Amino acid sequence: MAGNSFGQLFRITTFGESHGVAIGVIIDGCPAQLDIDMDFIQSELDKRKPGQSKITTQRKESDTVQVLSGVFEGKSTGTPIALLIPNEDQRSKDYGHNVDVYRPSHADYVYDAKYGIRDHRGGGRSSARETAARVAAGAIAKLFLKHQGIEIFAHVTSVGTIEAPNLEGNDLSALLQIREENIVRCADPATANEMIEFIDSVRKDGDTVGGKIGCIIKGCPAGLGEPVFDKLHADLGKAMLSINAVHGFEYGSGFAGSELRGSQHNDIPQPKVADSKVFKTTTNYAGGILGGISNGMDITFKVAFKPVATIMHNQQTINAAGEASEIKGKGRHDPCVVPRAVVIVEAMAALVLADQFLRNKVSII
Amino acid sequence: MAGNSFGQLFRITTFGESHGVAIGVIIDGCPAQLDIDMDFIQSELDKRKPGQSKITTQRKESDTVQVLSGVFEGKSTGTPIALLIPNEDQRSKDYGHNVDVYRPSHADYVYDAKYGIRDHRGGGRSSARETAARVAAGAIAKLFLKHQGIEIFAHVTSVGTIEAPNLEGNDLSALLQIREENIVRCADPATANEMIEFIDSVRKDGDTVGGKIGCIIKGCPAGLGEPVFDKLHADLGKAMLSINAVHGFEYGSGFAGSELRGSQHNDIPQPKVADSKVFKTTTNYAGGILGGISNGMDITFKVAFKPVATIMHNQQTINAAGEASEIKGKGRHDPCVVPRAVVIVEAMAALVLADQFLRNKVSII
Amino acid sequence: MAGNSFGQLFRITTFGESHGVAIGVIIDGCPAQLDIDMDFIQSELDKRKPGQSKITTQRKESDTVQVLSGVFEGKSTGTPIALLIPNEDQRSKDYGHNVDVYRPSHADYVYDAKYGIRDHRGGGRSSARETAARVAAGAIAKLFLKHQGIEIFAHVTSVGTIEAPNLEGNDLSALLQIREENIVRCADPATANEMIEFIDSVRKDGDTVGGKIGCIIKGCPAGLGEPVFDKLHADLGKAMLSINAVHGFEYGSGFAGSELRGSQHNDIPQPKVADSKVFKTTTNYAGGILGGISNGMDITFKVAFKPVATIMHNQQTINAAGEASEIKGKGRHDPCVVPRAVVIVEAMAALVLADQFLRNKVSII
Amino acid sequence: MAGNSFGQLFRITTFGESHGVAIGVIIDGCPAQLDIDMDFIQSELDKRKPGQSKITTQRKESDTVQVLSGVFEGKSTGTPIALLIPNEDQRSKDYGHNVDVYRPSHADYVYDAKYGIRDHRGGGRSSARETAARVAAGAIAKLFLKHQGIEIFAHVTSVGTIEAPNLEGNDLSALLQIREENIVRCADPATANEMIEFIDSVRKDGDTVGGKIGCIIKGCPAGLGEPVFDKLHADLGKAMLSINAVHGFEYGSGFAGSELRGSQHNDIPQPKVADSKVFKTTTNYAGGILGGISNGMDITFKVAFKPVATIMHNQQTINAAGEASEIKGKGRHDPCVVPRAVVIVEAMAALVLADQFLRNKVSII
Repeated sequence: MAGNSFGQLFRITTFGESHGVAIGVIIDGCPAQLDIDMDFIQSELDKRKPGQSKITTQRKESDTVQVLSGVFEGKSTGTPIALLIPNEDQRSKDYGHNVDVYRPSHADYVYDAKYGIRDHRGGGRSSARETAARVAAGAIAKLFLKHQGIEIFAHVTSVGTIEAPNLEGNDLSALLQIREENIVRCADPATANEMIEFIDSVRKDGDTVGGKIGCIIKGCPAGLGEPVFDKLHADLGKAMLSINAVHGFEYGSGFAGSELRGSQHNDIPQPKVADSKVFKTTTNYAGGILGGISNGMDITFKVAFKPVATIMHNQQTINAAGEASEIKGKGRHDPCVVPRAVVIVEAMAALVLADQFLRNKVSII
Repeated sequence: MAGNSFGQLFRITTFGESHGVAIGVIIDGCPAQLDIDMDFIQSELDKRKPGQSKITTQRKESDTVQVLSGVFEGKSTGTPIALLIPNEDQRSKDYGHNVDVYRPSHADYVYDAKYGIRDHRGGGRSSARETAARVAAGAIAKLFLKHQGIEIFAHVTSVGTIEAPNLEGNDLSALLQIREENIVRCADPATANEMIEFIDSVRKDGDTVGGKIGCIIKGCPAGLGEPVFDKLHADLGKAMLSINAVHGFEYGSGFAGSELRGSQHNDIPQPKVADSKVFKTTTNYAGGILGGISNGMDITFKVAFKPVATIMHNQQTINAAGEASEIKGKGRHDPCVVPRAVVIVEAMAALVLADQFLRNKVSII
Repeated sequence: MAGNSFGQLFRITTFGESHGVAIGVIIDGCPAQLDIDMDFIQSELDKRKPGQSKITTQRKESDTVQVLSGVFEGKSTGTPIALLIPNEDQRSKDYGHNVDVYRPSHADYVYDAKYGIRDHRGGGRSSARETAARVAAGAIAKLFLKHQGIEIFAHVTSVGTIEAPNLEGNDLSALLQIREENIVRCADPATANEMIEFIDSVRKDGDTVGGKIGCIIKGCPAGLGEPVFDKLHADLGKAMLSINAVHGFEYGSGFAGSELRGSQHNDIPQPKVADSKVFKTTTNYAGGILGGISNGMDITFKVAFKPVATIMHNQQTINAAGEASEIKGKGRHDPCVVPRAVVIVEAMAALVLADQFLRNKVSII
Repeated sequence: MAGNSFGQLFRITTFGESHGVAIGVIIDGCPAQLDIDMDFIQSELDKRKPGQSKITTQRKESDTVQVLSGVFEGKSTGTPIALLIPNEDQRSKDYGHNVDVYRPSHADYVYDAKYGIRDHRGGGRSSARETAARVAAGAIAKLFLKHQGIEIFAHVTSVGTIEAPNLEGNDLSALLQIREENIVRCADPATANEMIEFIDSVRKDGDTVGGKIGCIIKGCPAGLGEPVFDKLHADLGKAMLSINAVHGFEYGSGFAGSELRGSQHNDIPQPKVADSKVFKTTTNYAGGILGGISNGMDITFKVAFKPVATIMHNQQTINAAGEASEIKGKGRHDPCVVPRAVVIVEAMAALVLADQFLRNKVSII
């Protein structure tokens, strides 16, 4: 079973290589009668597309999405929704030098080792270009979740060692507005400026840098998650780790929580107020998830991205014959991937939640 | 689709509640002709069982495993292997007080919210007792991997803020021997002593503490992992996050890697020596995985566990009606879960690798 | 991916060999809060068990079912339901002669060819004994369907060339009563007598004979079935063909329908009467399914069983070395499998419908 | 889990509506390094396309296939292969009258019942146009199987009550040549003429007629099939029943076998000749499959198709409000579906075998 599908009931399958004809996605299991807002889908793709600002790659792709099936008179019909994004700016010549040389910390070698054949143009299937298909599908998942009152927000919480303050508890639409006012997509304006300046200096060095993205989900009802393996945070973790360059995932108290005592870490439930249906705890170390099931509190998690592997320096490496070789990054690459990855994190979170929402609908007779 | 199965080709399905008749697991897809060493399976279970030492719960369960099917004359037959572990020490009365009161940071509330019914005895299905079934199945996966020359080793790398030194690069069987000589299962003896003392003091306080487990896998060939969603580290991450109390997962450089520059983080491939078939890099920030596919270097990852939620203090909480209530831990609980979880981490890693090993067998015509 | 699971949302996994310790099944995805009537489950198993009458095998197995998990205080909890049926009458010595000799038209040779190892006792995994696990799981599916007003009825429609009249349109509980009053399980008393006499004469000849089972499902709402591959009749067909000895499946007009013209075969929809919500057609060549989706009319299908392969005659065959050999059936076998298979057909139909019922719950936002 | 995917390891997902932009398919799991012969794929599609002869629909669609991904320099790369077939001849106005009126024995009503919304143009997703995507994917499965020495042949064995003689045992390439020399695709020339004349007369009556397709598979090794649910014939049966208009499936002796005695029906194994590796039986009532696993003999099965529902007569029906209405077929439809369905049967058989071939590769350590 090859690994190009994700989700059980709200299930996507992506296809396409960086420098092929097109990339795309089929969504099988989107419930019927959902309003499919194509402008919204395109606006999500625009947040991921290259060439947005001085701190992203200067490649130009309009990433224009077309719907091929599954939508009739503006609504989902319950049949598979196919979305296509043609590839436009395929400067394959930038990659001619990659045919035989393995780029350090790229997937060139392992694709050869696994398949014995590799579309070497721009990383082929291993390119992060594939994530555009996820963003398109995730946009539809977001439309479904919005219909259920669930809201997802992510932003850049660190670049290198520059960390944003914790913004949990704030209104998400306010945070979203701030985030979209700066090119690094951090919801704290002062930190954003610092990050932008730093990325720009790294870029001028011909280098790259890693970072982290934090995510907050509001409005999620209690009950989502399917123990014992498809726990909500396990599915979120897998979704995030499947994004290019991700090296870590934590939710709620995360790694820091492992240093605490139970008496510090337990979240104390609050007595119900009047006819509220909501479960509340004084703290939220649980990150909105207990035993793998959402408890109705905000869901919070964080994702760590390694620095982009393509740098503009000379690097030692080997060729396909295993002999010493040298490589220097050409082409147009991102100095830091997190600003463009914010919408990918949101998309994958939306896909997990839409799937778990549907799965939860069959929990009780 | 309920979530009690894991894996695609080497696939397990677990069942059972903490205080029911038995727990167990079916393995569907274990290749035929594997020697099934029942003593080894039992010895793995013994590493997880309660009552091992002063720093684990004092509950007594022999956790004796029986094979019901799929093994004939000591070998796997290719048919489903069913393993059964009867429950013995079911002091349900210890849990009588849990019927109506939600224990803080436990799954009581969410199971009620999701299913409208809950086996309240000892956590029911949400109890970590279920992981014994995983250990049994994981032992068979280990036997399969050993046959392929793949070795998995995990140990406790931190308890609270006490951290063990990095032991990557050491011989795994030597580390294993050291690990099994101390009750906390840390492969550094000095740190182990410190950890044991600390856990014991926490236990005397009626409190609990979190910790981390690190894992090293040697001998894994290049080629395992199925992009773009079932990347090797994404499957490992999901597997680990599905273990009770886990709040974080990172591989290779992990969260710390997000602070580095590309020029620092890239692993430089080394020219092939003579007729070696192995790909080597000077550093291993990649943790043995590039683009979601193993590259033949050691695979390394780390897992963060929150402190056990059951503490021997009075805690405020609510009952099923949402009214204020109070609870005090009774029963016999672990002050720190990581010593017993080491073998669970190894088991889940083994299940992921066995599955990906089989999946990789159909990659090429 | 091994093939021991069936269903997507109401999903079963069976295990066990004919002469092993036990057979059993895990149901993952049975919705919570269903009343689990253990007496009903046992009564279903009793209809399949050996030793019922002079026209079935004289082996004795009580087939007593135990529930190991997933049921609390008489109700399903939403966690996996494990059911165990210990093997009792394991006269393995009856099968000693099968170690090296391949029984004609049995699966002995192909298991060796596929796995290189075979539990030769009583057919091992290929024995129809495995279907007891399906009947137990199917009984729970029936309880779920009954709760939705869906009723399933099967009976023997032919033995050899003896055919029962078409009984579609009759009240199912009346038919059930007649069926259970005769040992061949045909709902037409006169045909039943003829069948019984014939099977008995075949048995005395040391021979066996095939037959057919017809099934009628009432109360199924319109909307069940997931085109384009998981059409309701495609899932029913697969379910039936997975039963031992089945060689054919047809629904509605079936094979005979291929001889008709469209003007004869089309079912004409009837105008709705008053506030009826039900879709009706004058005829039902469609067998209650159009485009793979139930239309609310009775669902009808038929299943063909080959004659039992074990006969009490001397037969030529080969041994594992490919050399000529001879075999004579020993042991205690059924002269005709259909009387005991009626409840298996019902069980598999129930599993398909329960699964499709749940899947249909997520079709619309 | 929606039903638009088929197969486990060689897995396809189709999308597209009859009168949408395009239809297509993603193949996930095609092994790397397979030569992808686009001309062969197109030639297979040409056998299914409309407008081939006087006895098929006169609609015109070139059904030109494009590959969007997964193929590099003529070979499969192990990544998803996406194939696109644009829709050309979309005379939606032919279907304007279908908006509110339910065509008898079509899926109009059930799609409305299930999804509450329906792309009414030409049947939308329920149109047999979707099978073009299956044929394209099946062509790639055939290329894979050819590489393994497995050959699949189907032809029309009956139209109405006109039956072809049994041609099992003949050379498949000779049969293929005869089949392609007549427009009804029956490998017996005399019967073919009779069938063509009959279909033509039915067409002139404005009526339609059903028929049957038989399939023979040669060169399949022993060992394919995954009991107990994914038996080879169970997967074949599901595949065939998922094709539009199919009402029945039987393999080997099929329905007729249910009338026989064991002493007549058992296939007697032949002693091995010299160093032959092949298992042979004197007869082949088993249809090449025992216990759900291929035994190395020819695999044979038969598929029954109902008559096309669209006829050029006035028919009574109802509208969406349930009121009496009348309809008369317009547009351009097939008088008999089997000539164009031959290649669909082969395609689905190829998909099953490719999938089971890969699954069998992981049966033994």
